[in-house]
Amino acid sequence: MSVSMPDLYDVYTAQRRIDSMVRPTALIADTSLAKRCGAASVHLKLECLQNTGAFKVRGASNKILSLSDEQKRRGVITFSTGNHGKAVAFVAAQQNIRAVVCLSEHVPAYRADMIRSFGAELVIHGASQDEAEHHYVELVAQKGFTPVEPFDDPLIIAGQGTIALEILSELPETEVLLVQLSGGGLLGGIAMAAKSINPRIHIVGVSIDRSPAMLESVKAGKPVAVEEKDTLADSLLGGIGLNNRYTLPLVERYVDEHVCVSEQQIIEGMVHVFERQRLIAEGAAAVGVGALLGGLFDAGGKRVVTLLSGSTVASKTYLETVLEGLV
Amino acid sequence: MSVSMPDLYDVYTAQRRIDSMVRPTALIADTSLAKRCGAASVHLKLECLQNTGAFKVRGASNKILSLSDEQKRRGVITFSTGNHGKAVAFVAAQQNIRAVVCLSEHVPAYRADMIRSFGAELVIHGASQDEAEHHYVELVAQKGFTPVEPFDDPLIIAGQGTIALEILSELPETEVLLVQLSGGGLLGGIAMAAKSINPRIHIVGVSIDRSPAMLESVKAGKPVAVEEKDTLADSLLGGIGLNNRYTLPLVERYVDEHVCVSEQQIIEGMVHVFERQRLIAEGAAAVGVGALLGGLFDAGGKRVVTLLSGSTVASKTYLETVLEGLV
Repeated sequence: MSVSMPDLYDVYTAQRRIDSMVRPTALIADTSLAKRCGAASVHLKLECLQNTGAFKVRGASNKILSLSDEQKRRGVITFSTGNHGKAVAFVAAQQNIRAVVCLSEHVPAYRADMIRSFGAELVIHGASQDEAEHHYVELVAQKGFTPVEPFDDPLIIAGQGTIALEILSELPETEVLLVQLSGGGLLGGIAMAAKSINPRIHIVGVSIDRSPAMLESVKAGKPVAVEEKDTLADSLLGGIGLNNRYTLPLVERYVDEHVCVSEQQIIEGMVHVFERQRLIAEGAAAVGVGALLGGLFDAGGKRVVTLLSGSTVASKTYLETVLEGLV
Repeated sequence: MSVSMPDLYDVYTAQRRIDSMVRPTALIADTSLAKRCGAASVHLKLECLQNTGAFKVRGASNKILSLSDEQKRRGVITFSTGNHGKAVAFVAAQQNIRAVVCLSEHVPAYRADMIRSFGAELVIHGASQDEAEHHYVELVAQKGFTPVEPFDDPLIIAGQGTIALEILSELPETEVLLVQLSGGGLLGGIAMAAKSINPRIHIVGVSIDRSPAMLESVKAGKPVAVEEKDTLADSLLGGIGLNNRYTLPLVERYVDEHVCVSEQQIIEGMVHVFERQRLIAEGAAAVGVGALLGGLFDAGGKRVVTLLSGSTVASKTYLETVLEGLV
């Protein structure tokens, strides 16, 4: 089966389509971080201040706004309990489209409440995420909901890629982009768009050492599953899908370098962002900063941009983690 | 001595003048706060994300960029150890202008370090803020530095007033503005600009009950000193100056209503902003939100805007305060 890879035209189309659903986010200089890692400059793209608290609303709105009237009438469905689930719920509510989110019985109450507060219907089924996902597949078949995949969809990828357009409009002289890597929708979209505009931009994928599913898949040349361990960067957990069609090829083609951050580096990233910028980064949002602080990438003399991807973290966890991590 | 009050033209002039020094900040809807206080809508103006972490850079840059070449050559001086001091240091450094900040021996080290990190020279003199201020007056006379007053200066007031232009450009249907009140530069500038554009806008000044110097002065019809007590909103401490010329008349003329928040309401405001918006508000920044949560102002059915004015707060104080305040 041939697949059509998303390209720069799709990203421009997405930018126009999602305009009413997303905030253009600020790109701010972090001079203390630049000094720490020897970069000419480091800028942070503040997707932690995006609507719903994470970049995911870009891809979700590009997908949902592309649906036919009939698909919109039937509604959408997903099984994410995190930033993607919130984004689907938010966009659907704005458009008066029915949204169903499948959860397992083990999803924490605060996550279920969060999804519900954005106006989605919850279907709680099964003892594990796999069972919830199985039920989700059944509902797609039975009820005709349109699935909104978290990352392996050209429209999702193109939506996330709009971040690269904003960055390069504001800072065309960008030399290095450090982007979080999990399922690859974010990195795939940004890397494709950025390289299509300027092939000399060096793209660095930042994985977590507790679940580097895409990195292992790149090494294996095919999708592989990895064990998942508890991490502060829980938004980066999960596999890339054994039937992955889009994001693995995009990452293979466009990403120049991979680094893996430790839990300690994630904490240092969160603390730095709090201390120096008075911004709240969830664990997954701080991995680029953590990689720079940890010297995982040689930023010497370069103009670097990294992403604060979201701010979804339990309040107590955040406050206690940063309090403990203060120097 | 006749004084020339700043007007809307001065605010427009300021907006153009300070363009390269300030970030236009986002205005975001807080739907949970609107629901809590029965408002048609509540929007937050995010000056906590302004350069240097507070709105003060608007007034300071309007003042400093208005100086003559000779004044710029000699340098500027102030005695603020807070957001105004940071702003003066930042703007002067950007313009290669010498900046001196006078402190007493009792100013905490972290504040002195903060001012120094922005590139200002510190002059530490005297056992109290009054002695530091006295030395500052001597230095102005002896060395020819230009003083940059924290609030009672038409250029400072006009600079802060640019916030009103941004708010009303984006949300012209604003009906109520709740603004923090201390020396009155911020409230005076915003109230004058907003009322000049739309006299029907209802302006509410939010003071802290531990040091309502301007409110007591308004009641007395002349500047009065009040006792200062410890408060989380330490940026709002301080008198209005017994020789006040501009801000007291502006507040008398343009402010429709005054409310006073308690320490508990300040904490509730900080917690709300953290919990719901994942933004960091210093105590002074949270007083408008605290007033709305506390029901101090009847927001029923109205379109309300309030300001998150800054994010300068000691890390440990912030984290512990919010952790304790979580429900």
